[in-house]
Amino acid sequence: MERKEISNAVIKRLPRYHRYLGELMESGVERISSNDLSEKMNVTASQIRQDLNNFGGFGQQGYGYNVEYLYNEIAKILGIDRQNNMIIIGGGNFGQALTNYSNFERRGFMIQALFDVSPDRIGKSVRGIKTLDMKNLEEFLSGHHIDIAVLTVPKSTAQEVADRLIACGIKAIWNFAHLDLKVPDDVVVENVHLSESLMQLSYRISEKRDKEGSGQNS
Amino acid sequence: MERKEISNAVIKRLPRYHRYLGELMESGVERISSNDLSEKMNVTASQIRQDLNNFGGFGQQGYGYNVEYLYNEIAKILGIDRQNNMIIIGGGNFGQALTNYSNFERRGFMIQALFDVSPDRIGKSVRGIKTLDMKNLEEFLSGHHIDIAVLTVPKSTAQEVADRLIACGIKAIWNFAHLDLKVPDDVVVENVHLSESLMQLSYRISEKRDKEGSGQNS
Repeated sequence: MERKEISNAVIKRLPRYHRYLGELMESGVERISSNDLSEKMNVTASQIRQDLNNFGGFGQQGYGYNVEYLYNEIAKILGIDRQNNMIIIGGGNFGQALTNYSNFERRGFMIQALFDVSPDRIGKSVRGIKTLDMKNLEEFLSGHHIDIAVLTVPKSTAQEVADRLIACGIKAIWNFAHLDLKVPDDVVVENVHLSESLMQLSYRISEKRDKEGSGQNS
Repeated sequence: MERKEISNAVIKRLPRYHRYLGELMESGVERISSNDLSEKMNVTASQIRQDLNNFGGFGQQGYGYNVEYLYNEIAKILGIDRQNNMIIIGGGNFGQALTNYSNFERRGFMIQALFDVSPDRIGKSVRGIKTLDMKNLEEFLSGHHIDIAVLTVPKSTAQEVADRLIACGIKAIWNFAHLDLKVPDDVVVENVHLSESLMQLSYRISEKRDKEGSGQNS
């Protein structure tokens, strides 16, 4: 597939299109107009058309979108039409929560192993997935094709772990550690900084409180 | 504080400023130029100045920024200069992981209780925080001031739980359930859709693969 440069905002909206189209399919809807999709998703119809035009359109004048076709095309664009193998580094609560979350599998993200340094966790299984010793990371990676490494380790060791992963050829990191990793240009990182998300929420609360306090209507 | 309308992009960057300034304070740095901060954060100096000018500036020509002052001012803007009381609905792995994450407390986010429907979990404590019966949610909320409810329940029950919370006067929801909640205008919702974050990562991987496959350099 040839690709042009797509803005971050569009890429962020694609999984949401995929989710809504999946729900439509589940409820037996076969086609939908951009207006109906727009109403359902609370995005303007012109935004939807613009977003999808980045990838060649998919809609037909007067017909709208074929739900299943569009769902599959967006899956291809998102790279979830194939299996992505993952390992999780850090077998604490977060690592275990992610391992237990079966929704990832339904989208082709298969967790192949957990890694931890704690003797209490090493050797134990979570949903059938083994927790391996962090010492054996390099050995494991030399024998398995892994697409994504998930980092749920403390901030203090995250960069060191990332460096080890990258040295083994890992090109994609899903980072839950609360720092900005330094990685080479050919490695992609997607951050989930939970504290920052929570602070955005508290910003909204405090913005609302100030508006109410100063007697304005928002 | 009077506030003007601030763009989402700026609000998203504020917690990151806060984090870097906190790190600078920890390493004993008392003042910093926007150029040095820019280099550290990988954001242009003009971006930093523009962002902070939304709130009145804080910098001084030729001096730069006083790190502690700016850190505290950003904390005020983010509403983390005060205590925010939270409850977590859903005592599964994710709820427990969030409860165990002591970083939230350091920023004034205090978890007051966990709620669950499972008899196996009700009555148990996580880090000293009790898991209460979901049946008693309304009773609890009538006696406690809670600023934020965290939703880590399945998609299928999330809207119903949100409705109950809102009926009790909850005005802020941190939503981990994979759906877009319908809420009144005076309720703020911040979503953490992990599957969507993972799909953005897989988009990046697949974009890179296509570029390499077609022989372009990225």
